Amino acid sequence: MTKKSDIRITLTEDEVPKKYYNMAADLKGLQPVLHPGTKEPIKEEDLLPVFTKSIVKQEMSKERYIDIPDEVREKLILLNRPSPLQRAVNLEKYLKTPAKIYFKREDMSPVGSHKGNSAVAQAYYCRKDGIETITTETGAGQWGTALALASSMFDLDCTVFMVRVSFDQKPFRRTIMQTYGAKVHASPSIVTQYGKKVLKEHPNTSGSLGIAISEAIEMAVSSKNVRYTLGSLANSVVLHQTVIGQEVMAQLKKADIEPDYMVACVGGGSNFAGFAFPLMREKILGKTDCEFVAAEPMAAASLTEGEYRYDFGDTAGMTPLFKMYTLGSEFIPSAIHAGGLRYHGMSPLVSEAYDQGLMSARAYDQTETFEAGVLFAKTEGIIPAPESTHAIKAAIDIALEAKAKNEEKTIVFNLSGNGLLDLAGYEKFISGSLSSSRMK
Amino acid sequence: MTKKSDIRITLTEDEVPKKYYNMAADLKGLQPVLHPGTKEPIKEEDLLPVFTKSIVKQEMSKERYIDIPDEVREKLILLNRPSPLQRAVNLEKYLKTPAKIYFKREDMSPVGSHKGNSAVAQAYYCRKDGIETITTETGAGQWGTALALASSMFDLDCTVFMVRVSFDQKPFRRTIMQTYGAKVHASPSIVTQYGKKVLKEHPNTSGSLGIAISEAIEMAVSSKNVRYTLGSLANSVVLHQTVIGQEVMAQLKKADIEPDYMVACVGGGSNFAGFAFPLMREKILGKTDCEFVAAEPMAAASLTEGEYRYDFGDTAGMTPLFKMYTLGSEFIPSAIHAGGLRYHGMSPLVSEAYDQGLMSARAYDQTETFEAGVLFAKTEGIIPAPESTHAIKAAIDIALEAKAKNEEKTIVFNLSGNGLLDLAGYEKFISGSLSSSRMK
Repeated sequence: MTKKSDIRITLTEDEVPKKYYNMAADLKGLQPVLHPGTKEPIKEEDLLPVFTKSIVKQEMSKERYIDIPDEVREKLILLNRPSPLQRAVNLEKYLKTPAKIYFKREDMSPVGSHKGNSAVAQAYYCRKDGIETITTETGAGQWGTALALASSMFDLDCTVFMVRVSFDQKPFRRTIMQTYGAKVHASPSIVTQYGKKVLKEHPNTSGSLGIAISEAIEMAVSSKNVRYTLGSLANSVVLHQTVIGQEVMAQLKKADIEPDYMVACVGGGSNFAGFAFPLMREKILGKTDCEFVAAEPMAAASLTEGEYRYDFGDTAGMTPLFKMYTLGSEFIPSAIHAGGLRYHGMSPLVSEAYDQGLMSARAYDQTETFEAGVLFAKTEGIIPAPESTHAIKAAIDIALEAKAKNEEKTIVFNLSGNGLLDLAGYEKFISGSLSSSRMK
Repeated sequence: MTKKSDIRITLTEDEVPKKYYNMAADLKGLQPVLHPGTKEPIKEEDLLPVFTKSIVKQEMSKERYIDIPDEVREKLILLNRPSPLQRAVNLEKYLKTPAKIYFKREDMSPVGSHKGNSAVAQAYYCRKDGIETITTETGAGQWGTALALASSMFDLDCTVFMVRVSFDQKPFRRTIMQTYGAKVHASPSIVTQYGKKVLKEHPNTSGSLGIAISEAIEMAVSSKNVRYTLGSLANSVVLHQTVIGQEVMAQLKKADIEPDYMVACVGGGSNFAGFAFPLMREKILGKTDCEFVAAEPMAAASLTEGEYRYDFGDTAGMTPLFKMYTLGSEFIPSAIHAGGLRYHGMSPLVSEAYDQGLMSARAYDQTETFEAGVLFAKTEGIIPAPESTHAIKAAIDIALEAKAKNEEKTIVFNLSGNGLLDLAGYEKFISGSLSSSRMK
């Protein structure tokens, strides 16, 4: 029913993908995850105390397609899937570019971002495996919010360790999680041994993501019916996010569009990968020349400035070792507003795709990304998440390059979330007090 | 393409209504608006210094259908129209009711509520009539946000007078308006004579909606190219909001649903009227027995506790006199979180429909509406605006009445907005510190 003149290309509920696409089946040369102690490839049983068994299976899987359970598809629909692919007509007009710009609307989820796609899957598998409580950490709060709702949907208890500074500065994120029924602890907390130890040594600490991860994992490994969940980085999370890219492909086909560029922001990598991998498979197969562009913050430019080597996923060195682009597990990115991109490493799948030249990366300062975000808000009406403004900035740059060459390129980017709960950055940008954020 | 099993009943962009429905054509016995000085029926020329001429014409019109300009329809699409009608399956299950509950998703607008529907119309008509700047007041901020975006869309300057206490307590609403390019003044301000006068007499005042209205009107009447805009109450605003109810009727028809109840919250009345009037016409014509239920706050229960008489629209007595249900123009509702419902009067069209028995009303305390809001968030995933929780509470009550009688009733309510920028009320509810809000 979509016409060429429509602003939005929509799909029906029946067109929510029925399978996840697993890039590990097509990307050759992936290196195994290593046990931090033995440095040997990690085994399923090493991960079972932390993650639920269905997720461990997915983490190790090389199957190309994995069925999405009906119960998960029903919840994806409640997250407003399938989400529209929308044309940014007013942004195009403003830029006076011959390029066509489309964006995928992950901002329409009731939790405000793409994070719900993996949250409902992980909650479902935990419930199915007999787990009663799930734990996680959250910094900016997008992932914690998504997991809180997913837990409510599958009648699980949910405990979120929220970095103390965010707990205090972002009370509304906490309120949303509590409204969905989650327990939220400021981390370090007194509910774990590790939290108590940190508090004893540093009573006034504002916390860190590393500490919060340690608390969440401690709670999981201490009990048979509790498991930990992760919001990005892992192969299984990337897998769940491929519903985005599969919908995009169906939408492009429906409207007879061949993209020249697919653009998304990268932090841990699951947003970019979920959006890009289904079409990147076609590139591996030689069926498309589309360029895939990852937009990262200069403050944590793991692809453009990092090294490709084995490293820990966390700061304390408790996780397995991943072969990935990394700035070093001890690297602390400056406090940019795009909290979801403040990560030293990169999904092993995205890292390998980048290393093989299947994609490129561009790094941006937060002042230029907020400028792009404000322009997008004024032209298209939607205030984007600080993370998503990186993709918008890259899309605008590519559209202006097309203008300079007078080329009718087609650019598709992923609007990974809205910025309604991250307005402090916009406030600073508007008042002229937003600082630059390059790495030292 | 909608199937009976779908969660959402959707429409295509082509199905965004092409005409506004004007209830003034079908509702007999409406009393004229009176000039505050002469007490004679007001004339077009009395209103022209305040409102742009196209809006004044609509305000006086008795035409049943008024064309929606293509330029406005294009912008309504950017506000995510047509919006889905969604079934609240999980809420039904939780309530164990035989009733079916549907809700209209005005929460999906990028400005978070239904307010954009009238904002884009008023901005368009101002631009068409050669106006360059539009002004308004805002309390909670929903209307100011919508008008700021609409002004950006039609390249108008926009000045919003925001009640000082909200300006200080809700900095993020202010940030959104500024992101869309609006000028926002804390009211009372130093940019109007009236503002300066108030500040001189009460330097530490926290402001009021009445003062902010006076400042916005003063700015409009002082210049040829500036006009004032209104977010509810007026016939023209009700007219613009009927895109909601017309879409609902198309969606009900598509899915072959006959509603027994249509439920919406009421403050000034435009949300309820826009949702209900297109179908209420069928009731006037004897084609439906559907019951129309307005849900109002006990703190400002104009329908259930007010008198039907002529009264001013504002506190200072500067507006024309409207025949309406009113608690008295000097009545100050208690500071409930549903700021959009804190109004002493009621749209003359809604008032007359209520007086004629075409609809009923129920009043609720804010503690019970927040309880309904949290239940809705946990079951359907969406955190509703505090205003909308009144409609949810009424829908739940009706669904439980149907359960008690074992009747398969169909209830449709309007989810007028989301609560992502009004989380302070939820925070208080969750922590147990939310106060009751009955009128003294």
